[in-house]
Amino acid sequence: MANATGGPEIEQLIQLLSRLPGLGPRSGRRAVLHLIKKKEQLMIPLAAALDRAVAAVKVCDACGNIDTVSPCTICADPRRAETGLLIVVEDVADLWALERAGIGQVRYHVLGGVLSPLDGVGPDDLSIDKLLKRAPDYSEIVLAVNATVEGQTTAHYITDRLAGSGVTITRLAHGVPVGGELDYLDEGTLSQALKARTKF
Amino acid sequence: MANATGGPEIEQLIQLLSRLPGLGPRSGRRAVLHLIKKKEQLMIPLAAALDRAVAAVKVCDACGNIDTVSPCTICADPRRAETGLLIVVEDVADLWALERAGIGQVRYHVLGGVLSPLDGVGPDDLSIDKLLKRAPDYSEIVLAVNATVEGQTTAHYITDRLAGSGVTITRLAHGVPVGGELDYLDEGTLSQALKARTKF
Repeated sequence: MANATGGPEIEQLIQLLSRLPGLGPRSGRRAVLHLIKKKEQLMIPLAAALDRAVAAVKVCDACGNIDTVSPCTICADPRRAETGLLIVVEDVADLWALERAGIGQVRYHVLGGVLSPLDGVGPDDLSIDKLLKRAPDYSEIVLAVNATVEGQTTAHYITDRLAGSGVTITRLAHGVPVGGELDYLDEGTLSQALKARTKF
Repeated sequence: MANATGGPEIEQLIQLLSRLPGLGPRSGRRAVLHLIKKKEQLMIPLAAALDRAVAAVKVCDACGNIDTVSPCTICADPRRAETGLLIVVEDVADLWALERAGIGQVRYHVLGGVLSPLDGVGPDDLSIDKLLKRAPDYSEIVLAVNATVEGQTTAHYITDRLAGSGVTITRLAHGVPVGGELDYLDEGTLSQALKARTKF
């Protein structure tokens, strides 16, 4: 539907904001009205923050993390190398989630996706070659890919490629999420949790 | 939770985006990652669009609409005066919704909220005085406020203030929403829809 009001500047802002994940045309419009109402407190700071981020954001050459420096803060921190742990994740969002969980002094490697022949994503589209080059510097590689079919396929592929390198390859434990109710869990998770039961 | 990754520019962008309606800390972070991934197609255009909108956006002196000119495109259009209809709405979002509905050549008046003693919103906080000054130029004033207690209180207050001005005051019809199923409607709407039934 055409929008007769607002002028082209506002219309364009609505269209761009609508393309953010979690927003659509309706909520994009609501967001723009909110921005305009809070021009001094929100709209002007957001415009400035976006300009600064556009100029500052870099993808880390070593690990694929997003930061304002390359190599990123994590790769540049020598304490991070001490544990010898390299955590392989699909996406920067996963890296950030693990950092928020405070898992300690580890380094990461962002694959940039998972193998998915149906979507035309092959090994060359992911940063697997870079991972193979980094692997000898670490004592253990944790494949923290999602527990999906594509994620597990990717994990198997990486394990094959690393065979003979001598590095230990591990994966995240399956089990009951902390705070989760058994009633709502799928059978796969429950049977894995039972198999991997630990002493109380 | 502290976020060790991303640097202050990214962290600030996440915090500002999280304050948009419909987004929170988690979806704000997702939105920023999406922006960074689509830097050329989305992040840079959005930064430019925000800068342009900050510079261009104006609130119409006459009606309270948001536009890039004041008086706004609607107030400046002489054809809009011909019907003599002035539609009073709470918010610019309501004005835009009515415009999208294509209700024809009308003018609007944005109150900027509703009377709400509990929230400390009195008549002086809304653009009611401006409405009283505009009213004599129109033949009919439609109070298109929300069908909430505050909206109806505001409508009654405006009706009282306009008493004796000679202008016709109307309100939107209550009834079954187009496409709505009776089963899901509240009793109030159903009884109003029956009372206001029309010939088939």
